Amino acid sequence: MIALDLLARHIGIAYEGASLPIVALNTLKEAQGNELSFIVDAKHLQALKTTKAGAVIVTDAFIDAVPSGCEILRVASNPYLYMAKASYYFSKTPYESRRGAAKVDESSDIGENVFIAEGVRIAKACTVMPGCYIGADVTIGEGTVLHPNVSIYRDCYIGSGCIIHANTTIGCDGFGFAHTQTGEHVKIYQNGNVIIEDDVEIGSNCAIDRAVFGSTQIKKGAKLDNLIQVAHNCVIGEYSLLAAQVGLSGSSELGRNVVMGGQSATAGHLSIAPFTTLAARTGVTKNIEQSGKTFAGFPFMDHKQWLKLQGKLGRLLKS
Amino acid sequence: MIALDLLARHIGIAYEGASLPIVALNTLKEAQGNELSFIVDAKHLQALKTTKAGAVIVTDAFIDAVPSGCEILRVASNPYLYMAKASYYFSKTPYESRRGAAKVDESSDIGENVFIAEGVRIAKACTVMPGCYIGADVTIGEGTVLHPNVSIYRDCYIGSGCIIHANTTIGCDGFGFAHTQTGEHVKIYQNGNVIIEDDVEIGSNCAIDRAVFGSTQIKKGAKLDNLIQVAHNCVIGEYSLLAAQVGLSGSSELGRNVVMGGQSATAGHLSIAPFTTLAARTGVTKNIEQSGKTFAGFPFMDHKQWLKLQGKLGRLLKS
Amino acid sequence: MIALDLLARHIGIAYEGASLPIVALNTLKEAQGNELSFIVDAKHLQALKTTKAGAVIVTDAFIDAVPSGCEILRVASNPYLYMAKASYYFSKTPYESRRGAAKVDESSDIGENVFIAEGVRIAKACTVMPGCYIGADVTIGEGTVLHPNVSIYRDCYIGSGCIIHANTTIGCDGFGFAHTQTGEHVKIYQNGNVIIEDDVEIGSNCAIDRAVFGSTQIKKGAKLDNLIQVAHNCVIGEYSLLAAQVGLSGSSELGRNVVMGGQSATAGHLSIAPFTTLAARTGVTKNIEQSGKTFAGFPFMDHKQWLKLQGKLGRLLKS
Repeated sequence: MIALDLLARHIGIAYEGASLPIVALNTLKEAQGNELSFIVDAKHLQALKTTKAGAVIVTDAFIDAVPSGCEILRVASNPYLYMAKASYYFSKTPYESRRGAAKVDESSDIGENVFIAEGVRIAKACTVMPGCYIGADVTIGEGTVLHPNVSIYRDCYIGSGCIIHANTTIGCDGFGFAHTQTGEHVKIYQNGNVIIEDDVEIGSNCAIDRAVFGSTQIKKGAKLDNLIQVAHNCVIGEYSLLAAQVGLSGSSELGRNVVMGGQSATAGHLSIAPFTTLAARTGVTKNIEQSGKTFAGFPFMDHKQWLKLQGKLGRLLKS
Repeated sequence: MIALDLLARHIGIAYEGASLPIVALNTLKEAQGNELSFIVDAKHLQALKTTKAGAVIVTDAFIDAVPSGCEILRVASNPYLYMAKASYYFSKTPYESRRGAAKVDESSDIGENVFIAEGVRIAKACTVMPGCYIGADVTIGEGTVLHPNVSIYRDCYIGSGCIIHANTTIGCDGFGFAHTQTGEHVKIYQNGNVIIEDDVEIGSNCAIDRAVFGSTQIKKGAKLDNLIQVAHNCVIGEYSLLAAQVGLSGSSELGRNVVMGGQSATAGHLSIAPFTTLAARTGVTKNIEQSGKTFAGFPFMDHKQWLKLQGKLGRLLKS
Repeated sequence: MIALDLLARHIGIAYEGASLPIVALNTLKEAQGNELSFIVDAKHLQALKTTKAGAVIVTDAFIDAVPSGCEILRVASNPYLYMAKASYYFSKTPYESRRGAAKVDESSDIGENVFIAEGVRIAKACTVMPGCYIGADVTIGEGTVLHPNVSIYRDCYIGSGCIIHANTTIGCDGFGFAHTQTGEHVKIYQNGNVIIEDDVEIGSNCAIDRAVFGSTQIKKGAKLDNLIQVAHNCVIGEYSLLAAQVGLSGSSELGRNVVMGGQSATAGHLSIAPFTTLAARTGVTKNIEQSGKTFAGFPFMDHKQWLKLQGKLGRLLKS
């Protein structure tokens, strides 16, 4: 928690309004009265008009649309940069060296050289193999198996019956930066977490980023192969299957039973309908709205069209 | 070992036949009299007719081809799903917290925070750096170097003179699941191992899957760069060279001295002739039978053809 | 240090000249009087003529161009193979089990199960989380944060204010081999290091190779996402941004503020001008000399051209 006037001073915004206590940053849509939000793009104008945020960082372009009762942090330009600066004040320390007060069920088998931070809860019948790191306030459900050298950052939630293979990282920072006029990058602290539901299996050497706000989610029964990148704020639907070396950009939303072939990938901020199949190396560049279809290629297209295109290229080659 | 009638009951198959002791699952071709096999596809019909398996899971479509003396587990549909369920009963516990009775040569240098499970054998003059995990019954040959935080799952075999770089995982589970009618995935326990022959070097943050049955193999003198995916049951030939971020799908077989450029990949269940060269990003989609050739592209083609195609596309662009 | 005549004998070259003390291998251009160099290709002929190397491995093709005062190790063929053999004699042991005589500022928080080798220097206010490995003579600047299970090989340098995420490997061996006539690979020991400047952030499960000679460099303020491959002797310019699963081949040089999209990659030995933007999956195959441009595709082309090509292909498909 930080007082709004103090926060404004820290991040270099002149502010004469009320000294509201602020507990977090959030999107216009999700923010509550004790949270700070911001607007960068006119596409969020409607969300601004109806936001419940306690305060908002705005330029003059949007200032008239701020609802009454919402405090205004007015900036000349680049509100995203001020949001980045503010994010630091809501971040928790990434590491707490205390081991005190974790709650590990005695039926669970905790290997040697495992670090379990304060506030961790590990349910019955889990196996945590040597070299794992379990950050502060992580919850791990019944019967889950963590293979060696898995690293789980603070505040993440792993369900029951999950298997996480060796050297995988869960809850690392999403790749988010604001940029100064001189081309430097200011870190947007990633203050969300990762929620992995029951019966999920994740392969070796994967990287699952925590959300900037809210949660990156991997839903019940999804299965991920090795060396997969899941960026911040992705949602992977129930029973989805992701083959090795898949890369999901930020805020990709996969419906249930989506199948992604090896090395396939998504651009950010898009959604993929349930029961979609993506061939190996597919690069999804916009929303897939109709469920049950198969795609291939980059830019992606219907799989049959892609096969036809290869035939056409074969003929072009012979011409 | 489990009695066939008991196993049948566990996986939900009505069975009135003999109470045969079964020690493993295996393919029709490889199975012995104390092993259980299965048939999914007509392409394995010949293998069924000559199988030495003690018992087989079949639907009515193939039941007449089961050789005499081979017990029948008859299912209405989806034999693969029953095989998946059965695989659990042949799996070993992935982790044994006991350290007793490993055999480590006193000339080897074992770092701090290394976990060495029961049954491990480490030969002369090895270096095992801090944070490594060596699972039960792993064998490591003379002079091999394991860099920090390498994780080797149980039952794997590493030859002499190998170098494995940091944070690499060897012997993790292959990505194998059977699927229920309602779209859930049932794990096929990966009961094989990984065999790495002498003088192999593997880069950092690689994932080498164990076989579902039998062994994933990396043969003598092969060299792998960083961030490489080797799926279950692959065979990498002697002196092959795999550049960073290569991805091999399941049961890919590379002959000797195959060279794969960065980010190149294979589809599963195919073989690549010796002395084949694959340019960066090549995607191999079928067998390569003639040795000594160079390929590129996805779908892949002769490298010269690929260059010609790029020329044609350049002209198309200008047209 | 090894005497040149002794080294020649070890690697199988007849040499009757002076017994010069040699301390390292180096390129013709960089080598000093106490270093050994080599020439493989006529494109380095000019560098040979002006080299300050104390000695050089050459075939008869180049022997006349060796400057006076530079000792000659004459070989019939494959000087690169002899260089590889020689590299072994300049390599340091990758691991020293001694912990003595590190210099860790008492304000830094060093987690459990961290290995800190001899000669390490860790400045003020650092956080080194559990399971990290810090090799001999590594330097870490003020306020840097190492997340769990990061492995840093010996002799590397990390600046101030850096963040390195979990399971990342820094300073692992570059992928360098010479080849015998019978197709075996002889390791070129990677005797350089990695230098990471201030305010760099590197994601999870990345692999940053040490240089063969000299240093792999990541310059001030650069930000790398997860699962990235940086090969030996790369130089990443100030404030560059590399998205997940990017792969840089050996000796790629990026200017400042280069932006690389997900899964994009470079071929080796090329340079990319400052302020270049590469779309996701771009494959850079030659130098980019003009700054501030945007590229896409593989082989890469101007981004607008690439979009136009996709339009042409769309029309081809409909034709």
